[in-house]
Amino acid sequence: MERFSFAADVAFTPRDELLERVTIAPLSAPISGRSPFQAAVFRFAPGGRIVRHAPAGSGSQILAVLLGSGGVSGTSGAEEPIAAGEAVFWKPGEEHELKSTEGLMALIIEGEGLDMFRRPQ
Amino acid sequence: MERFSFAADVAFTPRDELLERVTIAPLSAPISGRSPFQAAVFRFAPGGRIVRHAPAGSGSQILAVLLGSGGVSGTSGAEEPIAAGEAVFWKPGEEHELKSTEGLMALIIEGEGLDMFRRPQ
Repeated sequence: MERFSFAADVAFTPRDELLERVTIAPLSAPISGRSPFQAAVFRFAPGGRIVRHAPAGSGSQILAVLLGSGGVSGTSGAEEPIAAGEAVFWKPGEEHELKSTEGLMALIIEGEGLDMFRRPQ
Repeated sequence: MERFSFAADVAFTPRDELLERVTIAPLSAPISGRSPFQAAVFRFAPGGRIVRHAPAGSGSQILAVLLGSGGVSGTSGAEEPIAAGEAVFWKPGEEHELKSTEGLMALIIEGEGLDMFRRPQ
C-alpha cells in the first residue's frame, strides 16, 4: 500500500489556456499505452471555468461534481445547472464547457472505451 | 452530453459479504473487454467497512477519501488513519481493508495497468 495526497495544497495550476481559476490534483498516472485512462480532482475557485473546447484524443469523459455547483454544457452549448452528486458523460471529441460562480470540486475521468454507468433496465 | 446521478439516494447496497454498512454509486460502466477499468463512489455509514480481502482479478486500485475519515491497511495489516484529501494505491491482488467509525465517502478506481499519480522528481 502506498499513500499519496490529492488535497488542495498539493494541487497545481497547469499552464493551460482552457483552464481559468482551476487547480488539478491527479489521482492516477497520466494516460499511456500501459493504462489508457486517467482520473483527477479539479477544484474551481469562484468564477472558475473550463473554457468551451472539443477535446483532442479518442477518450470519452465522465465529470462527477463532488462539492459545490456550476453550469455545464455539451454539444448543444445550452448551459444546464449541475451540483454535487450529479455527473455528466461526454463522448469522444464532444465540445463542452464547465463553469462555476460559487466554486466546485469535481472528479474528471477520461479514457478509451470509457462509458458512464447505465442502470439495468 | 448525458446526465446521471451518483447521489446517496441512487446508491445501492450490493449483496457482497465483504461490505458492511456500505453503499455503492457507480460512475463508470463495469470493467469489460471494451474498458478495463471502473470507478464508483462508496459511502460508509458509521461503523461501515470493507472486510479484509485479497481482490480477485489483475487490476490495481486507487482509493481516494472524499469526505470523512477511517482506518486503512494493505499487505502488512497495520491500520493507518486516513481522511478526506488522502488516497492509497493497492497493487493487484494486495490484501487490504477499510473501515470508518464516523462514516466516509470515497472514490474507488480499479483497472488493469492502473498506477497512482507520481509527482515528477
